[in-house]
Formats: sequence, C-alpha cells, structure tokens
Amino acid sequence: MAINTEILTHAATQARGIAIDGVVAAGNVGHLGMPLGAAEVGAALFSESLNFDPSEPRWWNRDRFVLSAGHGSMFIYGWLHMAGYDVTKEDLATFRHLHSKTPGHPEFGHTAGIECTTGPLGQGVGNSVGLAVSGKMAEALFNTDEHKIFDYHVVAVAGDGCLQEGVAREAVALAGHNKLNNLILIYDANDVTLDAAADKSQSEDAGAVYKGLGWDVIDIDGHDIEAVINAVAEAKANDNGKPTLIIARTEIGRGIPEVAGTSGAHGEGGAKYAEASKAALGLPGEPFFLSDEVKAHFAAKAEERKATTAAWQKTYESWKTANPELATLLEDGYADKFPSVEELSAMIPEFNAEKAVATRASAGSVLSTLAGKLPLIVSGSADLHGSTKNYLKESDGDFSGENPKGRNILFGIREHAMGAIVNGLAYEGLFKASGATFFTFSDYMRPSVRLSALSNIPALWYWTHDSVGVGVDGPTHQPVETMSSLRLMPNLDMIKPGDPEESAGAIIASFERRDGPTGLSLSRQNLPVLPEASAETKRMGVLKGGYIIKKETATLEAIIISCGSELELALSAAGELGDGVRVVSMPSTFRFDKQDAEYQESVLPSSCTQRVAVEAGVSDYWYKYVGLSGKIIGIDSFGLSAPGDQVLEALGVTKEAVIEAVKSF
Amino acid sequence: MAINTEILTHAATQARGIAIDGVVAAGNVGHLGMPLGAAEVGAALFSESLNFDPSEPRWWNRDRFVLSAGHGSMFIYGWLHMAGYDVTKEDLATFRHLHSKTPGHPEFGHTAGIECTTGPLGQGVGNSVGLAVSGKMAEALFNTDEHKIFDYHVVAVAGDGCLQEGVAREAVALAGHNKLNNLILIYDANDVTLDAAADKSQSEDAGAVYKGLGWDVIDIDGHDIEAVINAVAEAKANDNGKPTLIIARTEIGRGIPEVAGTSGAHGEGGAKYAEASKAALGLPGEPFFLSDEVKAHFAAKAEERKATTAAWQKTYESWKTANPELATLLEDGYADKFPSVEELSAMIPEFNAEKAVATRASAGSVLSTLAGKLPLIVSGSADLHGSTKNYLKESDGDFSGENPKGRNILFGIREHAMGAIVNGLAYEGLFKASGATFFTFSDYMRPSVRLSALSNIPALWYWTHDSVGVGVDGPTHQPVETMSSLRLMPNLDMIKPGDPEESAGAIIASFERRDGPTGLSLSRQNLPVLPEASAETKRMGVLKGGYIIKKETATLEAIIISCGSELELALSAAGELGDGVRVVSMPSTFRFDKQDAEYQESVLPSSCTQRVAVEAGVSDYWYKYVGLSGKIIGIDSFGLSAPGDQVLEALGVTKEAVIEAVKSF
Repeated sequence: MAINTEILTHAATQARGIAIDGVVAAGNVGHLGMPLGAAEVGAALFSESLNFDPSEPRWWNRDRFVLSAGHGSMFIYGWLHMAGYDVTKEDLATFRHLHSKTPGHPEFGHTAGIECTTGPLGQGVGNSVGLAVSGKMAEALFNTDEHKIFDYHVVAVAGDGCLQEGVAREAVALAGHNKLNNLILIYDANDVTLDAAADKSQSEDAGAVYKGLGWDVIDIDGHDIEAVINAVAEAKANDNGKPTLIIARTEIGRGIPEVAGTSGAHGEGGAKYAEASKAALGLPGEPFFLSDEVKAHFAAKAEERKATTAAWQKTYESWKTANPELATLLEDGYADKFPSVEELSAMIPEFNAEKAVATRASAGSVLSTLAGKLPLIVSGSADLHGSTKNYLKESDGDFSGENPKGRNILFGIREHAMGAIVNGLAYEGLFKASGATFFTFSDYMRPSVRLSALSNIPALWYWTHDSVGVGVDGPTHQPVETMSSLRLMPNLDMIKPGDPEESAGAIIASFERRDGPTGLSLSRQNLPVLPEASAETKRMGVLKGGYIIKKETATLEAIIISCGSELELALSAAGELGDGVRVVSMPSTFRFDKQDAEYQESVLPSSCTQRVAVEAGVSDYWYKYVGLSGKIIGIDSFGLSAPGDQVLEALGVTKEAVIEAVKSF
Repeated sequence: MAINTEILTHAATQARGIAIDGVVAAGNVGHLGMPLGAAEVGAALFSESLNFDPSEPRWWNRDRFVLSAGHGSMFIYGWLHMAGYDVTKEDLATFRHLHSKTPGHPEFGHTAGIECTTGPLGQGVGNSVGLAVSGKMAEALFNTDEHKIFDYHVVAVAGDGCLQEGVAREAVALAGHNKLNNLILIYDANDVTLDAAADKSQSEDAGAVYKGLGWDVIDIDGHDIEAVINAVAEAKANDNGKPTLIIARTEIGRGIPEVAGTSGAHGEGGAKYAEASKAALGLPGEPFFLSDEVKAHFAAKAEERKATTAAWQKTYESWKTANPELATLLEDGYADKFPSVEELSAMIPEFNAEKAVATRASAGSVLSTLAGKLPLIVSGSADLHGSTKNYLKESDGDFSGENPKGRNILFGIREHAMGAIVNGLAYEGLFKASGATFFTFSDYMRPSVRLSALSNIPALWYWTHDSVGVGVDGPTHQPVETMSSLRLMPNLDMIKPGDPEESAGAIIASFERRDGPTGLSLSRQNLPVLPEASAETKRMGVLKGGYIIKKETATLEAIIISCGSELELALSAAGELGDGVRVVSMPSTFRFDKQDAEYQESVLPSSCTQRVAVEAGVSDYWYKYVGLSGKIIGIDSFGLSAPGDQVLEALGVTKEAVIEAVKSF
C-alpha cells in the first residue's frame, strides 16, 4: 500500500503540538527539543516502520521500541497516544504530575508501550542491545524450520547525549561483534546537546566510527518521512549480520522558530512561545489536538495491526501443536512461572561437607546445574569467566552471531554495557539473565544496577572477590565500601553467603525474586562447609536474610552478627567465648528487614544489646543492628596488596579482635 | 646518536626475566602476559623515547608515562628499576608483599615514577587525557615567546581491556575533539584478553574507529624496537592537532613458549615454566639479573638525562627572572601552597541574607569568584553547566585545542571520562580541578571517584540536584541512596551544605584538603540563608563537619541532626518544638568523625539519646548517630516524578514528621 505521507506530515505536526502542550501542562518543564526535532521519525515509526499492536502491548513478537533519549518522554507518550496505546489525553495532560502515567522519564512497568526505563543517558542503547540478544536467542531456541514465531526487530532512538556515553559505546561495539542485525539504532543527529552546540564537545565522524565497529550506516534527512521509512525497511531487510545505524539529521526543536536548531531548544526553553508556535504550525489552541484525519489514520492502522497479531497467533498455535514442550517452556517463561524454592533446592545436590570451596565457585556450580535443567537461564561475564566461575556448562557454549543458542555471553571488558544488556534481557522477560565481574567493579556498572532496582526487574548480579581477602591484587581490586553501599540501594537484594550451602540459598533466592534484582557478593577464597547448621537450614536461612546459625546454650550474653567469609571467623570466635554467645548469619539485610517483627526479635532480641558485627568492610552500616552500644569489627580504609590473610590481619579483622570486642562488654 | 638496538634487545630480554622473577617472588601470582609481550616497547620507551630524569622523578617537564594496563605492573616496576628510579632489586623481590614498594597494581604516591594508580581498566587512558589537558593548559599559561618551559608528552600503554572500557572510549573521543596532540596512546594489541582470544569479544577495526575520532594512527610490529622508537618520534613531531594511537602488534607472553600468544599467558599461567623459559631466553638463574652491558647502558642514559634537566633548569631560571609573578604562581602551584582557610573566606563576600539561592548556584558563584583570583583553578561539567552552575566566569572561556587557556572544560555527556580526566589533572598536581554533573549520575563516574579517594588526590566532585527535591524529572534523576553510599567510601569527604554560607564553607573545605577528594551534594531548589547562625559560624562549622546551628535554651531534651536542603525543615520543626531542642547541622560526617572526642561530645552529648536524624535519603546510615533508640526521617524507596515539594510530602519528609518523631520520645 502506498504510504500517505501527507497524513503523516500532519501527524508529525500534531505530535509537535502534543509535546508543547505536555510541557506546558507540566508547568513549563520538560524537554521539547527531541519530540519536536524527531516528529517525522516518530510518524514514520509509529505509523509504518514498527510492527506492534497497541491492543496487545506485550505481544511477544512485537518490534521493541526504546527511547534511549528518555528526556524526550513527550515523544513517546505522544506517539503511544496517537498509535492507540492506553495513554489517554488525560494522561498527557498530567505529564510529570504526581502518580500520573506520564512521569518525567519513561518508566518500565508503569506505562503501556514503555519497554525500558530510560533517562540516564546511554542506558537505552545498552538495553536495546540486550533486547536484540534476547531476540536472537529466542529465534534460535524456539523457531523451527516449519514455523517462525520470533523475528522482531529492536529499534532505538538516541541522541548525542546517549551516544557519547561509555555505556553506549561499549554496547554498540559488542552489538557489532555479535552480529545483531535485528538491531536498528536511529541517531537523532541534531548537532545540539543540553549545554551547547554538539560541536563544542564532539567532532567525530560517527559513520566512520560505527563502520569501524562493524555496523551498517545509513545517513538521511530525519525530516523526510519517506527517507526514514525506507531506511528502516533497508535495515530490517539486511541479512549481512550487521546492526544498522541510521543517522537522521534533524533540527532540534523544529516548530518553535525562536529556539529551533539551538541548545535553547533542548529543554523547556521553547515553552514560552507555545501559543504562537502552535498557531504558526497551523494548530488550534485546543490542547493535545488531533485532527479527525490523523485519528482515522491511526484507528485504521490499529485495526490492521490486529490482523497481524491474529495471523501470528495462528502460526503460534500451529507451532504450539507441533512443539508442545517448547510451548510450555515459552509460556512459562513469559509468565515467570519458575520452579518453586523447594523444587530448585531439590535440583541442587548438597555440597561435600569435607571440602572447602570458594562461594564464587559453589554459586557458579549451582547456577550451572540449574541452567542445565532450565533452558531459559542465561549468563555471562565481563571477560572474567575464569575468575568469576559462572560459566554455564551444558548450555550450548558461547553466544555469538554464529551461535545464538549459546547461553554464555562474553561481554568483554565492558561491565557497564553488561549491566545495561542484562537489564535489556530482564525487561524483555523471557530469559533469566545474569552478569558477572569482580565486586569492586560493580562500580563500573552501578547506573545499570540502579535501573534494575528502580524498574523492579529480576536481574542477577554475580559479583565475586568480596573483600580484602582478594589479597595480592591490592586496594584497587579489594572492595571495602562496596557491600554496604549497595545495601543502601532501594529494592536491591544484596546477598553475601558464608559457605557453599548459603551460596546455593543465594542462587535460589535470586530466582525466587521476580520483582527486583539480586546482587551476590562471593568469595575468592575457599570457605568450609560450616558444620554449625544443616544444608537445609542454611539455604532456607538465606531466604529469610538472617538466622541463628549457632544458638547459645546458656543465658544469652552476646550476639555476633556476621556474613560472607567472616562468618567462619565469627563462629570460631564464638566457639572460644563460651555458651552464652549466639552467632547470627546475616547474608541479606534486605530480606531480614522484610521479616515480621516477631521473627526479627527471635533472631536479635532487643534485650540483648551486647552485639558485635563482623565484616571485612566499612563499619558504619552495622550500627543499624548493633546500635551505639555495640561493637563493630570492620575496615574503614582501603586495603593492601599482600596475601589475603596478611591483609585481614594487618587491618584488624581477626578472631582475636572479635573475642576482645565481646569480652569488652 | 645511533640507537644501539642490540643492547636494547638484551634489555628487553632481561626485562622479561625480571617480570618472571617478580611473579615467582610474589608466589606465582601476577600478570606476565603484558610485561613479556611489551618488553620491546618498554626498551624503546625507557631507553629512547621518553624524556625523564630518574633522579628527579617529578621533574615538571618530564614526559608522563602511564601504564593503563596496570595489571602488568611488573612491566613498569622492571623498567623503572632498569632506568634508575628508586625501585631496587629488593623492591622487585618483594612484589605483592605486604607494605612493599611494588604492590599488585601501581599506586600513585607510593612508588617513584608512578604517575597514576591504575588497574581498574580504562582509567589510565582517561588519566592520560587529563595529563595531556594539564600539559596544554600549562603550556598556554606559562610558556612565553622567549621561553618554552613546558612541552612534555603523555605516553600511555593500554591493552584491549582498557580500550574496550567505556571510560576509555569517552576519553579518547574527547582527546580527539580537543586536539590533544601531546598525547600518545600505545595499544598493546596482542589479540588476547584475560578469558580468551580477543576475537571472542571484539572484531572492530581500531584504526578506522580512532581515525573517525580524529586521531592519527600508526600500525607497527611491537617487537621491532626501532619501529616503536620511530613511531613515538613521529607522534611527538606531529603538529596537526591530533593525538596518536600507535597500534603495536605484539605476542602476549613472548618468552614463555608454552603459553605465548594465548589467554593462558595473561596472568601467572606461565610462571610454572619460569626456569626453563629463562634458560631458553639465555638468562642465568640469578633472579632479577641485569647484564653489565645493560646496566652500563642505562647508567650512561641516566647521566645524559641529568644534562637534559640541567639545561631545562637554566631555561627555567631565565624564564623565572623574566616572569617572576608567573614563577611564583607555578612554584606555589606545584608546592600546593594555597591561600589559607581564612584567606579564602575573606575572598568570598557574604551572601545577601534576604535572598534564597540554590546551593548549586551559591557554590558555583563561590568557585567562580575564587577562580577569578586564583588562576590554577579549573573546572568543567558533563554538558550540564546550565544546571550545575559551576561555570567559571573571568577564566578565559572554554578549554579547547584553539583555546588551551580556557579554564572551563566541556566534557560532553561523558561523566566517567570526566572523572578520570579530573583525576589526571589532580595526579599532575598543578591545576586544582573539579568536574560537575547531577548527583545521581555520580554513579556513572564512581570508579574514578574511588580512585581519587584511594590515591589521596584533591579532586573536587561538584554534584548538584541533591535529592528527590529535584522534582519532576522523576526517580531516575533523584538521588536517595547516593549521599550515604558515598559517605561510606573511605577518604572521600562528602559535604552537603544547608545554605549558601555553608556552601561557601564547603568550597573552602575542598581547597583546604590536599590529601584526598571532596564531593559536594548541592541543591537544585533555592535555600534561604539560615538566620540561626552567622556566616562565619556556618562556614567554619562546615570545616568541622558538624556543629550546633541552634542551641537549646532550656535543658536539652532532644537533638535533631540534619543537613542540606532538609536543615531548614529541621530548624523549622525545632522552632515549634520548644526550648529543649537542639539542631545539629551535619554537612560532613567525614570531617565530624575526625574531630576530637571532646568536640563530638559537645555537639552530640552521649547523655542525650533522644535523637532524630532528618535527610531526604535512605535512613540506614543515620543509625550511626542516633542509635537504635533514635528516629530517622528518611526515604527508603526511589522517588517520584512530580514537583519537589509534592514528592517530599508524598514520601513523608515533612516538618510534621520531624515534630511527631521528637514528640514520640
């Protein structure tokens, strides 16, 4: 069918009006530059290029659209509204109002049609790479010679702000390497950033750079709707294994002549010209105006789209009949139907009680064991599989363009992109993804970790080398503040298991949790299987966050609280201190804090104020559990380069120190 | 003089032996791949290409050498030793031993000749860009038509690990844009990363990418000493405004045939072949062997180098005579001789008591005022000058290739590179540098912040938009955990001023501190000049970290502790609560914790356990000051998109909540 560019031109103009009206409704705050500058891109995508069905926003084979430039949120709210998603005129009119469906930046799970939470720049590019990985994996796992149920594309729009960010630069390098030709990145190239003309901070030849990274590059006038449509069509048709960068040259803020093409257009600078601009655009004063023709066009489109999904549904049913097991796997996967805690635990053999194992290794073997039985578990490491020990065996090897079935993603030395890509997989929801690096280097991926917590997605962060116990690599590689600083992040369950069985509990906990991320802090050094409690007690103890691992056998005098590698030390100190000492294993304060008051009181009776916390890390956090009358054995400086035991000794984390602290009461 | 490549070949071979011996001395731990693979690069640099004087390791005009691939630390220790720096054979023999001069990764301030702490990958590339910026700025500020006292180059060695990292990718883009042709990046291209052959995670055409970023690219055989020497000479001679990437093709681990060229060579894998490898290299068993010829060669070189510095010294004296004021500025700059706290305070006019100002703006105006008087203050923002408000007026505009005198660096949307570049300036030591972004996005630069703290360098991190008070931008832009999580970082002084005068105190504090970084958390919203204390009291109160801003006028009943934007709220609650309530302003827990016990007790008497902490952020940290019997008004979830006052209200940070908490005792 011929494309009606006239109606699309009207739609673009009306989208400009909607963006202006949104920012005015917010009280003249918000970003106008992108929604106005990329209005023709929006018209092309939401009328023609993207394959979706607004009545079924999570349709499995939809094209995924990501607005990486999340500050331009009125772009996506406007186009979702026009395309028929559940974003009403009233929603637009409450842009940036408390509890509205249209917050300042798009939030996943909050508004239909939003695939990822964006705003922190560059993240959406990384998420898109993750969605594209997910698409490739789904195709490989579920499509058959007879039926193709997955062939979606991922389309992201990003500006200079996103593309200057390291996380995006890492991600696009990996996308080129992994031949993700289902990925289309539209670069809204308007030569302007928030502060200034982009030429104040960049002068690169983006086309040359992306070609060097293994991408196809198409350079177009972003205001030419047909050019956008043709470019996306060309990118979609591409079967050369290259992702496509579409450089769409646009004028920022087009439609408000007073600021268009300048950095003044980026934010709300143009809002004061709202009325005159709308008039000059030929728009009526009525806010959020859509002409009958434009409405009719998108209504007709929405109907057509239903036919597309219906046709797909037919293919799906036929595939399902032919592949009942695969269908169960797929349906359970999207439904987040996962084995129960008990079922998971039953899949994991008990560890040999005689053998000390580092929790990086024990957790890795647990993950690998589960992955062998649960085909949707995927994982990866930032070039540290040999050290993080989370390589999934029996999981079809390494993911690549040639082997999209591979469930081990080799992220390269790109922790931040790993974070954003794992988030992309978690947003998509089918695969249960994790990424690994050294715990200290969680800092490199922290913005993505924050977004996983904020977006309530079940990413698993697999961090190893949990303390100065790392030893000779020295302070650059030794976390001290890392654990507690991540405990402070809302909605992130940080778990630091103290022995192999607790590490099994930690992995189980991470799969139990479907409404937010779990971070693991795992030891480099070997830890014995602690004999003070059974495997069952320890695994289930982790799920409660904290539990009594060694109960006093006389009147309770003191409580030692510890976790991770230091738990052994706490138990050993308690052993010498006598019968009135209790040891509490506290692998997850997040989970412990969620227990009811009765349970908490049973573990940490308020009558017992003689409490000592022991952790090879900064001490401040532990006042929460020991109060001002307690003692904390911790490390309030950076580490040292020497064998781990010498470092712990030099920094005062010793059995003797614990004993002395308890005796000092 | 003709280059004696024969002796340099011997030197390279012996450097291989030294690296092997070092790793063996550490107990077969450490990275052999890089020191062995890049031995010829080392010989070229430390004999011929670098301009330095080992007897004067901080000579102002030395070429700065940065081993970004810090895991290859035996490379730099070995070459520093051979070149005559204060790194003895005994130091080499205690590689990775407790308190030795040769820790696992190179540490700034710990070993002569180490310009930057490296190990966390990519950071050294960013630091190098910072050093190059510093060099350009120094040339512009101090060189005259008659005398050129600065013309040094910055030479960095990085592997795939560094160059895959986003921080490096951001930094090299900025280097190309800013025409830093005093920067030479040697890419140790050995096709291998820690886990695998590099082709498992990358397939880019580095030459094309760097050319696209505005760099010159020279591709050589890294084992050809003359080729390395010629490439560096060509790069140094370059006056086309382009930094140079030298792609040095090397074989990782060359010298240990069992692992060379494979990922097994990266770490200590080759150590078990130490003896045989050394023999095959023609080296004796004696550890850390250097032949007499090689020793004599470097001894002669060291003598020659003294002549170079002596000649420079003569030029310097002549320049100094001609430019006494500049000389004082320069000498004071390197001596870290800075106006005293009192002198700084005297330079800053008091704020108009009637006018509410956001602390982002008041701190910015203070910084700008000081910069107007102190020419070594430089600053920058990650494309947020309009929001962070730290643009230095009267400071020669924007730094660029064309205007290297400009003291405002436009980092672009590259927070992480900003961190590493500011660190580079701080390592260099002449300029007093700061970088700005939104507080939430401190996460993007956290690895660099950590290194500033670990390396004891006085970087200033200027973060604005301190809380959910940010408002409509929503949770992605609203810090809640950020402040407390950074308070946990050892040696980082986090200051959150509560009014304009406290913001002046915060800036003063940042310049007082020369042995570590300061981070500021500044408000977006306007804050009144609090009338409860004088400007002097508030400024000096910040230097103590915490102080009584409102003393009780009856028997002390309760203490409210607060900081930042919430201080006003605390004072207002106290005003309604009656005469027995004290309010403590606690802008810096770091500084308060360093006060003597007597002062601390005078501010927070241990007899008063009825304490309430108020901060629009996660509450856990405050147990440290209020204990288990205190109350905390905080926010233990992510924020909301709505006007700031509505968000604070919705999340329970209100005057009423504070009053209720105090009354509940």
